[in-house]
Amino acid sequence: MIIIGERINGMFNDIGEAIKNEDPEPIQEWAVKQVEAGADYLDANVGPAVEDSPEVMKWLVEVIQDEVDAPVALDTTNVDAIEAGLEVHEGSAMINSTTAQPEKMESILPLVAEYDANVIGLAMDKSGVPKDAETRTAKAMEIIANADARGIPMENLFIDPLILPVNVAQDHAPEVLETIQRVKKLADPAPNTVLGLSNVSQNCNNMKLINRTFLVMAMAVGLDSVIAEANDEDLIDAVATAEIVLNNDVYCDSFLNQFRKK
Amino acid sequence: MIIIGERINGMFNDIGEAIKNEDPEPIQEWAVKQVEAGADYLDANVGPAVEDSPEVMKWLVEVIQDEVDAPVALDTTNVDAIEAGLEVHEGSAMINSTTAQPEKMESILPLVAEYDANVIGLAMDKSGVPKDAETRTAKAMEIIANADARGIPMENLFIDPLILPVNVAQDHAPEVLETIQRVKKLADPAPNTVLGLSNVSQNCNNMKLINRTFLVMAMAVGLDSVIAEANDEDLIDAVATAEIVLNNDVYCDSFLNQFRKK
Repeated sequence: MIIIGERINGMFNDIGEAIKNEDPEPIQEWAVKQVEAGADYLDANVGPAVEDSPEVMKWLVEVIQDEVDAPVALDTTNVDAIEAGLEVHEGSAMINSTTAQPEKMESILPLVAEYDANVIGLAMDKSGVPKDAETRTAKAMEIIANADARGIPMENLFIDPLILPVNVAQDHAPEVLETIQRVKKLADPAPNTVLGLSNVSQNCNNMKLINRTFLVMAMAVGLDSVIAEANDEDLIDAVATAEIVLNNDVYCDSFLNQFRKK
Repeated sequence: MIIIGERINGMFNDIGEAIKNEDPEPIQEWAVKQVEAGADYLDANVGPAVEDSPEVMKWLVEVIQDEVDAPVALDTTNVDAIEAGLEVHEGSAMINSTTAQPEKMESILPLVAEYDANVIGLAMDKSGVPKDAETRTAKAMEIIANADARGIPMENLFIDPLILPVNVAQDHAPEVLETIQRVKKLADPAPNTVLGLSNVSQNCNNMKLINRTFLVMAMAVGLDSVIAEANDEDLIDAVATAEIVLNNDVYCDSFLNQFRKK
């Protein structure tokens, strides 16, 4: 399971302030905390505090990678900011994200190929989030075909079937599970799958319980990766346990700690 | 999700003592506690304290149903004890269990048909628990075909793909998930599926975490029912949450309480 820590996002007050004041400390603290908790990638999103410019993304990537070795998920719709991040990034970055819109793929996928990066492909186009698994899968397949035609290896593509909150769009959740399964079965080799987990429980009661329950259910049908709160201990415990059940990690009595050490 | 409470089992000291002393009180207390926690059926297993006789099973069923309305799962390999339980049981009992062994089905399934009972069908024969999903599914299909030929409705059949502890047979867990999915897809109408949950974590660390994680993963691939500790609050919370994610129950802010009230 590939965990993408969501915490370096200007939407959180401490990170927003840090970006505004060009103060690396809170960002580096969260980088370390998330990596220690088990995060494989660190999402970086400038948020609403300052303009989402190439300079700020470049600064964010440098601040993070000065402190930890983990790769960064460049979370912005600004293509110039993505390219600025890619230029200074060490190792393979992740781009968050493209959709199946042709003009969007046309601007993002060449960067993925050029920088040997990873990319999240949202299973939607300009019509918005599809209602059913069929349409989600169709949009995913458009991204898969386009990435493949550009020579992007499938292990670098992360298809996100897009979960909506269960309190407003409850019928979407089973469709998302179905989409994960279809994408893993239809494409050979299959791309990775990913979820922006916190969406599922937005404004719900028992948010963390909903998050971890949905996450392991998605793992049961083939989920490979998640954007989530890496410092939610119960969430990481659930992921570690699901990896045992799926026979991806070997059981030992200290399996919860072993997962974090990997 | 149909929850079969596992607690009325003579293997637990308080129940073993109660059966030996013909003391209904501890049994009735656990009957009420489990039903209040969300159990739909109450498993009744005489355990090792006394002989597993027709008289004891009859007494157990009467003691339980004097106190609660819930149906009982007659958990014994003694066919005479099963029949004695069926004779005094009000409503549709569950028989726990038959295997795919012809002589076993020959003795159990006629009782299922005669008493309009439910039955757990273990996906195994005299060779023991199969290693892979293919063989488990084949054994399940033998039970399905045999039950169908006897006019037993599929909703009365509960196929158990048989989970083993992850610390000794870790490769079985993904096969069990695969079997659940195959049984639900191959048979039309499909039978119910069920798991004896506590097996998965026997002698493991973090037993309850493993139980609830495996349970919701199994629900994601089509599990309908479980024999489990109904008074494990976190387990029932996880089930209630999975029912929301699967869109089987309608989300409301008090969904954890609503699940228990049903």
